[in-house]
Amino acid sequence: MPKIYTQNVSGCMAEMIGDDGLTGDALESARAAAWDVWSAMRTDIAEDGFPAISIAQQSEDLAAVRDAAARLSTHCDTVAVLGVGGSSLGAEALCALALAPKVDVRFLNNPDPETVARYIASVDVSRAGLVMVSKSGGTAETLVLAMTLMPALTDSRAGDAVADYSVAIAEPGDSPLRRLAAQWDVPVIDHPVDIGGRYSALSAVGLLPAALAGLDIDAVRAGAAEALELNLAGETIEDVPAALGAAVSLALLQSQGARMSVLMPYADALAPFARWYRQLWAESVGKNGHGTTPIDALGSVDQHSQLQLYLDGPTDKMFTIVTQQLAGRGDRVPPDLAVLAGADYLAGQTTGDLLAAEQEATIESLCAHGRPVRRIDVARVDEAAIGALMAHFMLETVTAAFMMGVDPFDQPAVEDGKARTRKRLADASGAAVT
Amino acid sequence: MPKIYTQNVSGCMAEMIGDDGLTGDALESARAAAWDVWSAMRTDIAEDGFPAISIAQQSEDLAAVRDAAARLSTHCDTVAVLGVGGSSLGAEALCALALAPKVDVRFLNNPDPETVARYIASVDVSRAGLVMVSKSGGTAETLVLAMTLMPALTDSRAGDAVADYSVAIAEPGDSPLRRLAAQWDVPVIDHPVDIGGRYSALSAVGLLPAALAGLDIDAVRAGAAEALELNLAGETIEDVPAALGAAVSLALLQSQGARMSVLMPYADALAPFARWYRQLWAESVGKNGHGTTPIDALGSVDQHSQLQLYLDGPTDKMFTIVTQQLAGRGDRVPPDLAVLAGADYLAGQTTGDLLAAEQEATIESLCAHGRPVRRIDVARVDEAAIGALMAHFMLETVTAAFMMGVDPFDQPAVEDGKARTRKRLADASGAAVT
Repeated sequence: MPKIYTQNVSGCMAEMIGDDGLTGDALESARAAAWDVWSAMRTDIAEDGFPAISIAQQSEDLAAVRDAAARLSTHCDTVAVLGVGGSSLGAEALCALALAPKVDVRFLNNPDPETVARYIASVDVSRAGLVMVSKSGGTAETLVLAMTLMPALTDSRAGDAVADYSVAIAEPGDSPLRRLAAQWDVPVIDHPVDIGGRYSALSAVGLLPAALAGLDIDAVRAGAAEALELNLAGETIEDVPAALGAAVSLALLQSQGARMSVLMPYADALAPFARWYRQLWAESVGKNGHGTTPIDALGSVDQHSQLQLYLDGPTDKMFTIVTQQLAGRGDRVPPDLAVLAGADYLAGQTTGDLLAAEQEATIESLCAHGRPVRRIDVARVDEAAIGALMAHFMLETVTAAFMMGVDPFDQPAVEDGKARTRKRLADASGAAVT
Repeated sequence: MPKIYTQNVSGCMAEMIGDDGLTGDALESARAAAWDVWSAMRTDIAEDGFPAISIAQQSEDLAAVRDAAARLSTHCDTVAVLGVGGSSLGAEALCALALAPKVDVRFLNNPDPETVARYIASVDVSRAGLVMVSKSGGTAETLVLAMTLMPALTDSRAGDAVADYSVAIAEPGDSPLRRLAAQWDVPVIDHPVDIGGRYSALSAVGLLPAALAGLDIDAVRAGAAEALELNLAGETIEDVPAALGAAVSLALLQSQGARMSVLMPYADALAPFARWYRQLWAESVGKNGHGTTPIDALGSVDQHSQLQLYLDGPTDKMFTIVTQQLAGRGDRVPPDLAVLAGADYLAGQTTGDLLAAEQEATIESLCAHGRPVRRIDVARVDEAAIGALMAHFMLETVTAAFMMGVDPFDQPAVEDGKARTRKRLADASGAAVT
């Protein structure tokens, strides 16, 4: 059976791309460090010490998710997910896979008055639902959106059971979101206490919106579990793609100054996945002066936007291209039209053929310009594949953070901005509240 | 009368943020270099040597845009813009402003089979239209999408005039897109020969989709013209925000190692604008080993994704926060609910109040962590403001490129990938075409 995903880092090596690639020696010490970290993590995972990942092997918690999804999808045409950061990005990544969504799942993450107005203008409020997500239960953006949107919803839903059009996800224990839910009779699904926001995609936080969109959430977990098993089964680092990826990334930073990590899938459906990765990596490794900067890109679009800089700008990045099998897929260009146009090379090609040629051409071109490029291949971008990619990048990110000597699970610096926001609002509220 | 936008770079200076800021001396030489470049550009603009910008002061070319927009908006419910890079990003940035779009304008820029299938499944083909955009007339992605989508459209439109549901934009002269347009009787609007793709937002390329979405395209140009005048009127660099911005950016790169430039507006409607900027800057300055890497971010969303890294990761970035006046806008949190929730600081606040507090808190927090931050303020994100921001960033980008000694108007490296794609497809077509 083919592996659910494969990784190839040969395009990061000096023997392939020249001086800006890694020498065997430069990689060797990073490999050893990564292996040490990985060995400890492997033990940890076996002892259920990494619940964000091992949740992939469970299913008991999904009954509550299915129940909520069944109720909301019966009673709602549109469901707005109120959540920000980890409470939104994983769900957005998953929902992007839905070709014909069962429910129109929207994401309201910014308290932008224009966006809220647009949202209200575009839905039938009497068939709209809300999923309110905040791990701490105290996220200001989510609370403000909930408190401004829920009253209108309740008004237009007179007679309907609240549980038919709304649900909240929060940690157990007293919190503003829990108090509001109690006031409104909104059922609450527990956010796992031991899974941080940016690692929550495989929990109800990611899977409830995915189920509403009609996706196969078992397949998401199965794909993640398969990727986890694949990594756990590796007896050397060559067979542990997450640890090898972390080693290459850090070796490129240390020996080649690759301060940025570009994730560039060739599938529109993975564009939100790259935004999910951007949070995962940035908040996990970006602390105490450490970290590299994640950049989300999209093929082929960014060939026409970022590739000039990637090929010919400073050599300060590593690239990860996520490919899929595309040949023969999509609509075919009528050969006579292509010939008439003078674009014979497109005659008889499909949209997928073009995109397939482009993903290979970009990898070749990066190598030819001496830019370190890793490829990750999946057969097809589906629920299992995205589950596997999420598991891979969670494992890789945690490995890299531990190698840098930082805590992958905290985000201490953002508290400062939150405190400043609260102070500004509290200072203003003397005037605003009467 | 208040200025259409203001810029404040004091948050980039050492006296404000400490050691990671610029000293007066470090800025001084960059200011002198920027002033030299700007002085030459000013002369150039006066002699109509920068048509991407001076087009803002014209209107004769808009008759063709209005005519096409009137026809398509009468006969189409949905219009897909087929274009990639400069043929799409400016139009996307503008269309994002439309609160209730007249026509549902979609952007198909990737030849992704899933996306095309999704698009077809979501529209009434008999009320769909196409705008096909390629400056050269030879962009592979646009051609493949046009050749696969147009035949179905023509079939379902029997009896309708082709000009009622389709239009192309390309340079004069023979090209594949021109040949297809001639074959199909599709009218063609000239893409200005002397305006490069990534500088084309103020031409028909940006303004036709904007007009279809129901935006005031005169206001876009008027805003751009006002920003141009504001910069041209400055007698010292302090009063030329585009030149000062370029100087600060390069000084921060040279003296502080700020290799990345983060553009973070606090308005969902400006998220696509930040993607437009990303192409403009990357393709213009990223060459011959030069350039900094543009990063698009969005407030408040990225406070919960990237801010940890921005505040506490390596000091290798400069930040530009685009603010708007938000206080009092949007729906108000019922005070009793906020008190019940135990979130008293939100009592009586509006969504806009929260976002307003957050944009100020982020600026403060970046300064407090010694991260160089510039602010650009507009009163409200509307057509005039986005026109002004586009003019500002085009002027700043060109100034910065000339300061780096690179040509802001070419993109030589991307030709390599295009040639490799064509070769792969031509090699394959022996098999694929029969």
